[in-house]
Amino acid sequence: MNYSMIRYILCRVLEFEALFMSLPCLVGIIYREKSTIFFAPIMAVCFVISLIGRHFKPKNKVFYAKEGFVSVSLSWIILSLVGALPFYLSGEIPSYTDALFETVSGFTTTGATILTDVEALSRSMQFWRCFTHWIGGMGVLVLILAVLPLSGSYNMHLMRAESPGPSVGKLVPRVKTTAMILYGIYIAITVLGTIALLIAGLPLYDALTLTFSAVGTGGFGLLNSSLGSYSFAVRNILTALMFMCGINFQIFYLLLIRKPKEALASEELRYYVGIVIIATLLIMYDTRGFFESISQSFHHSLLQVTSIITTTGFASVNYDAWPEFSKTILIMLSLLGACAGSTSGGFKVSRLIIMFRSIKNEISYVIHPRGIRKVHMDGHVLENSVTKSVQVYAMLYVLIFIGSILLISLNEFDFMTNVTAVAACFNNVGAGFSKVGPSGSFSVLSALSKYVLIFDMLVGRLELLPIIVLLSPRTWKK
Amino acid sequence: MNYSMIRYILCRVLEFEALFMSLPCLVGIIYREKSTIFFAPIMAVCFVISLIGRHFKPKNKVFYAKEGFVSVSLSWIILSLVGALPFYLSGEIPSYTDALFETVSGFTTTGATILTDVEALSRSMQFWRCFTHWIGGMGVLVLILAVLPLSGSYNMHLMRAESPGPSVGKLVPRVKTTAMILYGIYIAITVLGTIALLIAGLPLYDALTLTFSAVGTGGFGLLNSSLGSYSFAVRNILTALMFMCGINFQIFYLLLIRKPKEALASEELRYYVGIVIIATLLIMYDTRGFFESISQSFHHSLLQVTSIITTTGFASVNYDAWPEFSKTILIMLSLLGACAGSTSGGFKVSRLIIMFRSIKNEISYVIHPRGIRKVHMDGHVLENSVTKSVQVYAMLYVLIFIGSILLISLNEFDFMTNVTAVAACFNNVGAGFSKVGPSGSFSVLSALSKYVLIFDMLVGRLELLPIIVLLSPRTWKK
Repeated sequence: MNYSMIRYILCRVLEFEALFMSLPCLVGIIYREKSTIFFAPIMAVCFVISLIGRHFKPKNKVFYAKEGFVSVSLSWIILSLVGALPFYLSGEIPSYTDALFETVSGFTTTGATILTDVEALSRSMQFWRCFTHWIGGMGVLVLILAVLPLSGSYNMHLMRAESPGPSVGKLVPRVKTTAMILYGIYIAITVLGTIALLIAGLPLYDALTLTFSAVGTGGFGLLNSSLGSYSFAVRNILTALMFMCGINFQIFYLLLIRKPKEALASEELRYYVGIVIIATLLIMYDTRGFFESISQSFHHSLLQVTSIITTTGFASVNYDAWPEFSKTILIMLSLLGACAGSTSGGFKVSRLIIMFRSIKNEISYVIHPRGIRKVHMDGHVLENSVTKSVQVYAMLYVLIFIGSILLISLNEFDFMTNVTAVAACFNNVGAGFSKVGPSGSFSVLSALSKYVLIFDMLVGRLELLPIIVLLSPRTWKK
Repeated sequence: MNYSMIRYILCRVLEFEALFMSLPCLVGIIYREKSTIFFAPIMAVCFVISLIGRHFKPKNKVFYAKEGFVSVSLSWIILSLVGALPFYLSGEIPSYTDALFETVSGFTTTGATILTDVEALSRSMQFWRCFTHWIGGMGVLVLILAVLPLSGSYNMHLMRAESPGPSVGKLVPRVKTTAMILYGIYIAITVLGTIALLIAGLPLYDALTLTFSAVGTGGFGLLNSSLGSYSFAVRNILTALMFMCGINFQIFYLLLIRKPKEALASEELRYYVGIVIIATLLIMYDTRGFFESISQSFHHSLLQVTSIITTTGFASVNYDAWPEFSKTILIMLSLLGACAGSTSGGFKVSRLIIMFRSIKNEISYVIHPRGIRKVHMDGHVLENSVTKSVQVYAMLYVLIFIGSILLISLNEFDFMTNVTAVAACFNNVGAGFSKVGPSGSFSVLSALSKYVLIFDMLVGRLELLPIIVLLSPRTWKK
């Protein structure tokens, strides 16, 4: 294990976190809020630790996948532990466990909250809360790779460990340029979203923070009613933003370099769009008694479907009151998630496609034992290692899911609460049903449950392997 | 597709079904019940069809796995369609859908019932109902292989398609002898169980029918209170029978040929015993307020754990009133099931072990990419095809499970009912929670739901592939 390289990366992460905190700090100064004073010392300490730690440059540059997973896991843990401090020190979230839950929920773009009154937070804290979504959406290490003049084999390992999807592709040969393109697209969507919301009549502060939550597919809002009290236009813009950020960013890149044909040929994109349309129509039909007009019904159904499949978790109505069939569809969408290479969580549409084709393949093999067994996607043959890793991913996913439900059931809440609390956190959706539904909060859970869910959120965001590798004794054997 | 061979096998199945029906017929004659007259014509028609169909002997003996899967699937479907007729024609179950549900539930050893008053059935019908458990427990084709002088490559394909487990092993080189040994052990346990229950004070009729339900790990009872009103001794005997029939029958064979060391070395057996003990202790602790003494608590907890993990579904108390944690443990045990090569349903302990080891393997590979990737079990290296098929099995299992829940949610019942109705049928447990719990029945579900669950029961009993192959268009292409 190359400890000095990991130390170096973690110091860089601390440095970037301090830089990120300057934004909510600025917000606090503009609104003349007292809580701002809590950001400054944290930032200072981060800088000092980073400076000392980075003083000793690592000589050994040997860096394998193992080191990549460990660095990324530790980065996210440190990011969360430090990111929770402003909430805790300012007293706005009095328990550190709760502050940590809220911060992990932010960085992992989950959006699950332990707050019962979101509006009571100061503006700088609300800003920081939504900004963590934006940072976590594309990932902090991808940002570091984009900005710093790093080179060597390790940047690919870092990128692979942090980015979602069964196989992470580079857009261009250089990792640094790939990271820059990804962040470029991300910033462009953020700017466009903010401008659109400004035009729709929101103040700058609201426009910016809501955009952070939507493009990071996080789900933290500014009001206790989530999106319930915003205008039709604002909600439509947010739906569009969520939908866009559920698409693999590679598609936007292909559009930018004028390859629309290749972009639209993506099988994952087609399935994603198809699933959103079918789910919206089914829910529109099932909830037909709940809305006054078809346009109302379409508006809320599409918003809710997009919000859940992209694992954002915004709510415009109390969908917990919807019929069981619609609720079951939403639960399934929350397990699925949107596309690989997007800011969304969950299992991912591409993994589902690969799963279906592996199954079809196995059945074909039973029927014709001498046939050729290959899984195709987007016209290419998938490597065996990819299909195998998807299969193992699926099994590990189910095991962690079931184990978590067992631990959460110790709370003695109803089955729907237990299952959807885990589904909401593990898939980074943030919104469940019953006690953890749109009108509830995660504050009712025990401390043990909160730590289980913190684990689930991190494991879910980093797509299982990094945290599992971090915790595996084999990693630490010489 | 070798149609003539499939026709021949199906005729044999009809013939055996007619033979099976002679037993409830005899019961009806002894108790002088009217409903007995409905068995005779069904038996006669079965014999005639079988005689005509078997008259043209198949010349083409080419028989692959594909034909095996199709024959077994069709056999079970015909067995159920015909087996439902006595219930329906006698009017004791007035709806054919309900009669079919009850019969499929019987043959697949599920034990889910649409009856709200079991005690209202005539004795011959009750006998037939419990006897279907016994037939389905070891499988009708295994019996045919044991009894008839068949030979050729096809008997292994039939056995493999009907027997549960990730890899079906022959006990001895000849399939016929293997089938005979399996049925020999099965009959021996049945005789022992009946004698034990007679000694415990039950009348012969009750002893025999309850033994059928227990050794087939089915769960149909004679009383509306399931096992609630039987004596302590009777319940202990049934617990022992269920536990035994959750063990791979290979273990009994090894004990018979005096290889106790090899029998006890089975990793699956050890995990099975370990899981039963741990689950019993956890539930004893969690339900400590529900029982007067530790022995009471142990008795009911062990019975319920054994009943659910072996996918029998007997209940001695209303466990739906237990705390959420205990209920969640029971749900998980119902998904798991007991050992491969037993009469139980579910995912099977051996598949769980292989799943865990595949995951461990994949993680090791990430940590040490140059290491050797092999999955071991019982000291042997598992073939890649076995681990791969377990992985595909797990994915298909989850997909069918999720799809079924979606369809069942159309009933607008609570989430617990929807999830556990599917879990109970798909894993052949028969007992769920809430509306389909120990004090409920499946009669409340819609006809669509009943057909979905009939499908789930058959798919679950035959371990997914046979029915999926039957329904796959590829199977029927030339």
